[in-house]
Amino acid sequence: MKAQPCSLRVRLPALLLALEALFLALYVCFVTYGDDLDGKLQNNRTDPMDNSLYRDYLFFTDVQVMIFIGFGCLLSFLRLYGFSGLAFNFLTATVSIQWAVLVQGYFQFYEDGKIRLGVANLLSAEFACAVVLISFGAVLGKTSPVQLLVMALLEVPVFAVTEWVVLEHLRINDAGGSILIHLFACYFGLGVTFVLYRPGLRDGHAKETTGYQSDILSVLGTLFLWVFWPSFNSALALKGDDQHRAVLHTFIGLSASTLTAFALSALLSQRGRLSMADIQNVTLAGGVTVGASVDMMISPAAAFALGALGATACMLGYRYLTPFLARALPDPGPVRHPQPARADGPHLLPGGDLGHPHRQRGRLRPQPVPDLRPPRAPRGGPQAAGAPPGDPRPPARPGPQRAGAGPLAGGGRGVAVAAAAVGGVLTGLVMKLPFLAPPPDECCYDDELFFLVPSDYGGAGGSRSPVSSQDESKA
Amino acid sequence: MKAQPCSLRVRLPALLLALEALFLALYVCFVTYGDDLDGKLQNNRTDPMDNSLYRDYLFFTDVQVMIFIGFGCLLSFLRLYGFSGLAFNFLTATVSIQWAVLVQGYFQFYEDGKIRLGVANLLSAEFACAVVLISFGAVLGKTSPVQLLVMALLEVPVFAVTEWVVLEHLRINDAGGSILIHLFACYFGLGVTFVLYRPGLRDGHAKETTGYQSDILSVLGTLFLWVFWPSFNSALALKGDDQHRAVLHTFIGLSASTLTAFALSALLSQRGRLSMADIQNVTLAGGVTVGASVDMMISPAAAFALGALGATACMLGYRYLTPFLARALPDPGPVRHPQPARADGPHLLPGGDLGHPHRQRGRLRPQPVPDLRPPRAPRGGPQAAGAPPGDPRPPARPGPQRAGAGPLAGGGRGVAVAAAAVGGVLTGLVMKLPFLAPPPDECCYDDELFFLVPSDYGGAGGSRSPVSSQDESKA
Amino acid sequence: MKAQPCSLRVRLPALLLALEALFLALYVCFVTYGDDLDGKLQNNRTDPMDNSLYRDYLFFTDVQVMIFIGFGCLLSFLRLYGFSGLAFNFLTATVSIQWAVLVQGYFQFYEDGKIRLGVANLLSAEFACAVVLISFGAVLGKTSPVQLLVMALLEVPVFAVTEWVVLEHLRINDAGGSILIHLFACYFGLGVTFVLYRPGLRDGHAKETTGYQSDILSVLGTLFLWVFWPSFNSALALKGDDQHRAVLHTFIGLSASTLTAFALSALLSQRGRLSMADIQNVTLAGGVTVGASVDMMISPAAAFALGALGATACMLGYRYLTPFLARALPDPGPVRHPQPARADGPHLLPGGDLGHPHRQRGRLRPQPVPDLRPPRAPRGGPQAAGAPPGDPRPPARPGPQRAGAGPLAGGGRGVAVAAAAVGGVLTGLVMKLPFLAPPPDECCYDDELFFLVPSDYGGAGGSRSPVSSQDESKA
Repeated sequence: MKAQPCSLRVRLPALLLALEALFLALYVCFVTYGDDLDGKLQNNRTDPMDNSLYRDYLFFTDVQVMIFIGFGCLLSFLRLYGFSGLAFNFLTATVSIQWAVLVQGYFQFYEDGKIRLGVANLLSAEFACAVVLISFGAVLGKTSPVQLLVMALLEVPVFAVTEWVVLEHLRINDAGGSILIHLFACYFGLGVTFVLYRPGLRDGHAKETTGYQSDILSVLGTLFLWVFWPSFNSALALKGDDQHRAVLHTFIGLSASTLTAFALSALLSQRGRLSMADIQNVTLAGGVTVGASVDMMISPAAAFALGALGATACMLGYRYLTPFLARALPDPGPVRHPQPARADGPHLLPGGDLGHPHRQRGRLRPQPVPDLRPPRAPRGGPQAAGAPPGDPRPPARPGPQRAGAGPLAGGGRGVAVAAAAVGGVLTGLVMKLPFLAPPPDECCYDDELFFLVPSDYGGAGGSRSPVSSQDESKA
Repeated sequence: MKAQPCSLRVRLPALLLALEALFLALYVCFVTYGDDLDGKLQNNRTDPMDNSLYRDYLFFTDVQVMIFIGFGCLLSFLRLYGFSGLAFNFLTATVSIQWAVLVQGYFQFYEDGKIRLGVANLLSAEFACAVVLISFGAVLGKTSPVQLLVMALLEVPVFAVTEWVVLEHLRINDAGGSILIHLFACYFGLGVTFVLYRPGLRDGHAKETTGYQSDILSVLGTLFLWVFWPSFNSALALKGDDQHRAVLHTFIGLSASTLTAFALSALLSQRGRLSMADIQNVTLAGGVTVGASVDMMISPAAAFALGALGATACMLGYRYLTPFLARALPDPGPVRHPQPARADGPHLLPGGDLGHPHRQRGRLRPQPVPDLRPPRAPRGGPQAAGAPPGDPRPPARPGPQRAGAGPLAGGGRGVAVAAAAVGGVLTGLVMKLPFLAPPPDECCYDDELFFLVPSDYGGAGGSRSPVSSQDESKA
Repeated sequence: MKAQPCSLRVRLPALLLALEALFLALYVCFVTYGDDLDGKLQNNRTDPMDNSLYRDYLFFTDVQVMIFIGFGCLLSFLRLYGFSGLAFNFLTATVSIQWAVLVQGYFQFYEDGKIRLGVANLLSAEFACAVVLISFGAVLGKTSPVQLLVMALLEVPVFAVTEWVVLEHLRINDAGGSILIHLFACYFGLGVTFVLYRPGLRDGHAKETTGYQSDILSVLGTLFLWVFWPSFNSALALKGDDQHRAVLHTFIGLSASTLTAFALSALLSQRGRLSMADIQNVTLAGGVTVGASVDMMISPAAAFALGALGATACMLGYRYLTPFLARALPDPGPVRHPQPARADGPHLLPGGDLGHPHRQRGRLRPQPVPDLRPPRAPRGGPQAAGAPPGDPRPPARPGPQRAGAGPLAGGGRGVAVAAAAVGGVLTGLVMKLPFLAPPPDECCYDDELFFLVPSDYGGAGGSRSPVSSQDESKA
C-alpha cells in the first residue's frame, strides 16, 4: 500500500505551523481585550456581575458542546471512519473558530485599529464554524485534513463577508441563522462537491458503510445537537422575551420534526422498519426551519407547523429529489447518498421566516420591531437594543432598521446562495490541487490512511483489507 | 421471518400523524405565550435580564441532557437492543413532553382560556416525561413503539391529575419529586407489567444479555444522570437558599449511595466482583431518597444517611425481595430480572421525607415553612414566594398552606400509589390490544424487528439468528 | 484462575463502609450549612437571586462533567480495561470529593467550630479531586480499587495542606491551578509509581492495548475536558473581567495546543499518520500552560503562544525525554509508556505564569493586583474582592497581599514539588501493603479481575484467555 502521495508528514505540519504563525502575528498586531475584559476599564463602581460574560457564557458552552461533541459524533457514523470523523471535526472546528475570530473580528468588532475580544466573539465565530462543519459533512470521507483546512480557510472569509453584507448593508437579520448559516453552508457544500466529483465513487464504495456502534455514536451526536439547539438558535437573539421565544420555538419545532421523522421513516423505509439515518438527521430539521423567525411573535402553533413541514421536506427531498437529480446531473452534490449527506440533510431548506427578522450580533445592535409590540415605548438611551441596564456605553453604531418583509429577505437569500455557490466552486478548485493530499478512491472512508489504528480496527465487520492489516498492526 | 403482525409501516405513522394533528389543533386553539415571552407586555421599564428564562434555562438544559442522553444511554444496556433503547427513548420523551405541556398546562398554567407557555412549562413537562421513562424501563424490550406511545398518552394525564390533586388539594409538595415522580412511575410500571406478563419469558430470553460496549454506554448514561441530578432535584425548588440546599443535599446523597453501591456490589456479587448493573442503578438511589426533603433544613448529615439507606434498600430489594416475590406471585413486576429492571431499580422507595415538603411549581407558589426559619419575617408583596424582585404580577392564586407532617404526606403517597397502580393496570389492558404491534416472544430484545440494522449487528457475540442475517443484510 | 489474593469481597466493602461511617460522623459533628444555605439567615430583604448558588452553579456542573465523564472516558482508552477506567474513576472521584469537602473545609471554610457547606466547597473539592484523578492516570491498570482509595485518602490531605501553605502563608495564588494542581499531581504520581514499580511489566504487557471503540471513547473524554476547560480554569477566578479573561485565555491556549498537537503528531508518528494518543492528550496541554496566569492581563497573543509552547513541550517530553529516562533510571515513572501516561501527559510542565497570580478560593479572598489596573480605585467595603454588591458580610479574613513575582512563585513551586514527591513516595509505600489487593502482573489491564463481564468481553481482539472465558461466562 503506497501512502506516499497522501502522506501528511510534511503537508499537515507545514500548513498548521504556518497557520499558527499567521494567527500569532495577527493576535500580536491587531487583537486586544474587549471592554469587559480590560482591567483598566473597571472601576469601583463596576458591578462584576454585570459583565457580559454572565449573559453569554451558558450559551457559549452549549454551542461548544454542539460543535465539538455533537457534530463530531454525528460525523462518525461510518464504521471505518470514526477516528477521522471525530478528529477532523475537532481540528477543522478549532481552526475555523480561530480564523473566524480574526476575520469576523475585522468586520464586526474592530475599533481604533484593534479587534476587541471576548466571549461574544467566540460565540459569533462558532456560528461561522458551524457553517464549515455543515459543508464538511458533504465531503466527508473523500478529503484529506489538508483539504479540509483549506476549505475552512476559504469558506470562513467568504461567509464573513456575506454575513456582513447581508446584516449590515441589506439590513436583514436572522437570529437562528436560517438564511445565512444553513443556506450558505448547503450551497457552499454543493459547489465544493460539484468540483470534487469522483466518477469512480459513483456506484458507492465498499467501505462507505455504517456499523452498529458507529450508528449509536452518531445518534448520540444527534441528541447533543437536539438538546442544545435551543441555545444555538437563541444565542444571538435579543435578551429578554426575544430570547425566551427563541428557546421555546426551537424546542417545539424540533419536537414536531422528531415526530414527523419517525412517522415518515416507518412509512417509507423497507418493511416499515426505522432507519437510523433518518433519526440522525431528519429529527433536527425543525431547528433549521424555525430558525429565521425564531425570536418573533409567530405563535407556538406556527413553530410546531414549521417543524413538521421542515422534516417532511427534508425527508422527501433526500429520498426522492436527490435520486432524481442523480440521474439528471453529472454530480448531484452532497445529498445523493443518504448517509454521507447526513450532516447536510436538514440544511437544504431556507427556513420559514415569516416576516421581520432581527438579531443581536456583535456591534450590530438592532432596534426592536415596533409593530409587534405596540405597548412598548420607543427605546432610547442605555436601555435601547438589548444593552444591559447600567451599561454606560452608547451603542457603537446606529442599529439597522428593520428589514422590509418578503422581498428584501429574498434578496438576502439570493446574495447568500450566490456567494456560497460561487465560493464553493472556487474553493473546490483550490482543494483539487494535487499537493493537498487527496485520498485515492480506494482509500476513501478509511481511517487507516491518516491514522495509526489499533489491532482490532475493522474487526467485527471483516472489511479490513488483509494486506494492510499485516502491514499496520503495530499501531 | 414474518414481521407482518408487528410491522410499523402503517400503525406508527398513523398514530404519530394523528398525534401531530391533535397537538397542532390544541396549540392553535388553546396555547399562547406566557407573560415573559409576550412582546406586547414588555415596556421600556422592563429589564430584559429579569426575564424568567435566566432563572430556569440552566436547569432546563441540564434536565434535557438527563432525559434525552442520560435515560437514553442507560436504557441501551442490552447488547442487541441499543438502537431501540436510544431511539424509543427519544421518541417517547418527545411525545411525553409535548403532551404534558398541554395536559399539565390545562391544570397549572391555564388563564383566560389559554395555556401560557414558557420554559417553566417545559421544565414541568420534563418531570412528567421522567415518570413515563421510568415506567418505560419496566417494559423495555417487550413492547413496540406504538405500545410505548399509548402508554405515554395514558400515563401523562393520569399523572397530571394525580399531581394536581396532591399538590393543589392535599397541599403536599415535594421539590425533588420523590412522592409523585418516583413512586407514581414505579407503581404505574408495576401495574402495566402485571397485565403485560409474558409466561413465555418467565425463564429469561436468549437475547436479554448485555454487551461490553452496551454496558459502557449505559454507565455513561448513569454518569450523565448522576452529574445533573442536583439540577433535577432543585429545578422546582424556591430560588435562593432552598435551591442551594437542594443542590447540596442531592450531591451528598448521591455520593453516599455511590459508596454504598460499590460496597454492596463487591460484597454480594459472585466472587467479590463488581456488577455493572449495580453501578448503573444503585448509585443513583440517593438522588431519589433525598428527594422529598431535598430543600429543607435536614442537615448535610441527614442527606448522607438518606443516600446510604436508599442504596442499601434498593440493592437488597432487587436482589432478595424480588426473587422471593417471583416465587410467590404469578408475575412479580418490573423488578424480577435485575437487568430489565434497571431503570426502575432506584425508584421502589418512596423516599425519606422528614416533614414539611414544599416546592414551587407553575402557579402553585407555596408559602415558606415558618417553623424551620424563625428569623425570616413573613414574606409579603412582590418578594413573597420566590417571585423575583420587581416582578409586578401578584401571585396568581393563594399558595397552599404547608402540609401537616407525616399523616397527610402519607395520604398523598396513598393517593399516588393507588392512582398509579389502577392507571397502570388499565393502561396495560389498552396496550394489550392486538393492533398495537406487540412483538412476539421470540423477537423481544431485538433491534432487527423495528430497525434497519447494519451488517455488523450482533457480530461479536454471535447471537444473530442465521435466518434473519441473510434476510436483512441490505440495511 | 485463583482470584483469592486480590478478591474485593471483604476488603472493598470493609474500607468503604468504614469510610462512610467516618464521613457520617464528621458530618454530624463538624458540618453545617453556609450562610447562603441557612434559612435562618435569610430575611425579607434577602434577594433570593443574590444567592451565591447562581454565581457558582454553572461552573460547578461544568467541572462535574469534566470529572465524572471527561476523566472517566479519557481513562477508558485500554481495550480490556474500560469498565475499570470508567467505574474506578467514578468511585475514586466520589470518595475524593467527599473527603476533600471535609479536609479542605477544615482549612478553608471552618468557622465557630463548624465547616460551612455550600456549592463553593464542592467546587473547591473538585479541584482536589482532579489532583487525585491525574495521579490515578499514572497507576491505571496496575492497582486495585482498594489501593486507589488509599491513594485518594492520603493524597487529598497532603494536597490540602500544601494548598493551604502555598495560598495562605506564601501568599501565591494561581487561578487555573497550574502550580498546585498539575504540578502536585504530576510529582505525586511520579512518587507513587517509583515505589510501585513492577519489573515484570518493564517490557510492556500483552493486554496493555487500545481498541477502536476504546480510543473513540477516550477522544470523547478529551472533547468533554476540552469544551469545559475554560470553566475549570476560570471557576475560582474573581468575578467580572478576571473571570472573563480566564475563559478567553483558556480557549485560545487550548486552540493553539490543538493545532500544535496535530502538527507534531503527523510530523513525528510512523509514516506521517496521526496518533490518537497525541490527540487525546497533547491537545489539552494549553489548558495547563495558560493556567497560572489565566486571569491576568497577559494579552490574547500570549495565551496563544503559551498554548503552542505547552503542546510542544508536552509532545517532545513524552516522546524523547522519557525514553531517555527509561534507560537511565530503574523506573522512569508514569511517563515511560505513552499510553498509560495519557492522563498525565499534559501535566509535566509547571505552566508559564508570567508574574502576579492571584485567585479567589474559599475564604482566601485576594486583593486585586493594583499595578495592572491603575484606573481602578482601591476596593473597600462590601465591593472588595469579588464580594457581590449587597452582600452584607465583611470578608472573613484580610486577603493575602499579592505575591512578589518570580522568586516567591518559584518558592511555591518548590514547596509543591517537594510535598508531592515525598507524599507520593510515602503513599506508594502504604499502597504496597499486601492486604490492599494489588493485582498480580498477569492480571493487570484486565477488567475480568474485578468485574463480572458480559460474554462478548475481549471478543473482537481475541485477547481473552480461554481458561477464564469458560470459567466466567455467567456474568
